[in-house]
Amino acid sequence: MKIQLALDRMSIAEALAMARRVEAYVDWIEIGTSLIKEFGMRSVAEFRATFPDKVLLADMKTMDNAAYETNLWINAGADIGTVMAVAPAVTVTTCLRVAQSHGKQLMMDLLDAPVDKLESCVAMTGALLCLHAGKDQQESVDDFSHLFSHLGESSSFQPAGKLRIALAGGITTEILASVVSHFHPEVLIVGEAITKSANPEQAARQFRTLVHHVTGSDLI
Amino acid sequence: MKIQLALDRMSIAEALAMARRVEAYVDWIEIGTSLIKEFGMRSVAEFRATFPDKVLLADMKTMDNAAYETNLWINAGADIGTVMAVAPAVTVTTCLRVAQSHGKQLMMDLLDAPVDKLESCVAMTGALLCLHAGKDQQESVDDFSHLFSHLGESSSFQPAGKLRIALAGGITTEILASVVSHFHPEVLIVGEAITKSANPEQAARQFRTLVHHVTGSDLI
Repeated sequence: MKIQLALDRMSIAEALAMARRVEAYVDWIEIGTSLIKEFGMRSVAEFRATFPDKVLLADMKTMDNAAYETNLWINAGADIGTVMAVAPAVTVTTCLRVAQSHGKQLMMDLLDAPVDKLESCVAMTGALLCLHAGKDQQESVDDFSHLFSHLGESSSFQPAGKLRIALAGGITTEILASVVSHFHPEVLIVGEAITKSANPEQAARQFRTLVHHVTGSDLI
Repeated sequence: MKIQLALDRMSIAEALAMARRVEAYVDWIEIGTSLIKEFGMRSVAEFRATFPDKVLLADMKTMDNAAYETNLWINAGADIGTVMAVAPAVTVTTCLRVAQSHGKQLMMDLLDAPVDKLESCVAMTGALLCLHAGKDQQESVDDFSHLFSHLGESSSFQPAGKLRIALAGGITTEILASVVSHFHPEVLIVGEAITKSANPEQAARQFRTLVHHVTGSDLI
């Protein structure tokens, strides 16, 4: 299982400094939507220059203009981009086609997606499906596990099967074991539980150790 | 009726030059999502500095992180921002609250929104509702008027009533009269029909003249 460090609501310099502190404990680095909208593709390019060997995800949250936006993050040096599952179907399929034609990966963000959008995403082979409790949702509900409960209505959604699942949204060390056993994610996306910690290195190491325990020693 | 010039898929310098050429014929200037994701808030700030008196719309397409993103475009100098109607309800309401608390406006982008999302947007007083045929959708269908036909299922949607409607998506001078009579928009969003024209000034003037004819002389 991979840990994706999500960097948001900070300057590029702060994001680079944070990534340097914890890079030993995380697999993928996410340049968050807030950095992209505040600083543009320069944020992705600076990460590529600083971390030539890390897998970088650009959280584009594409809703339209699929080919153009996909080429933006590919040209800036990211390995993975995101599209919203609630975008028009042609936008989602175009993002996937363009990304794969360049040997890149696509993550489909299921934020607030209804079951029919989930099912069309599940049918697209190869993409990562991100079960995502939004930041605004986390701040407005105490227990956000119900945000995914409607996905159980779909027989297409079998997280223990061949789907590639990513999980995002307020994941802490306290809930890690239960969400992992429930959703069998390939990628665990962690943001403020590391970046807002008084000791980010220690927090990141703790996540890494927990993932190690939960998944078995071969996957550290 | 207002004409909103949408600027996308170009550099900031090209966008500023295009806006200068046609500013006499348009009311609002939209800094498109592609400029925001490519160059960040600098794109909005440069437009503010160049056009101190124009109404500027930042096409943020916010999906999450509502307060932070809304403050980004407000601080960069825009007058109006956009949120996706398909975003979580709490995200849409937070964008509206933050924008209005700063005396700014919010446009809710109904791109691929189902009827229930439309109805919750209609219930939020004061926002502009943007009926939007996406660029990817325009390229994949011949006739995109059916993209809005499902909205007719909702009794809440009465464009000739008190709703503030914006229309976006491949609007040309040929279809202007029919979409105006059908949707009664307050804002007509025009992009490539002006910016990709061989003569953008002439194209923009033509839109202005048509709007004048369609709406009556008092509204030019």
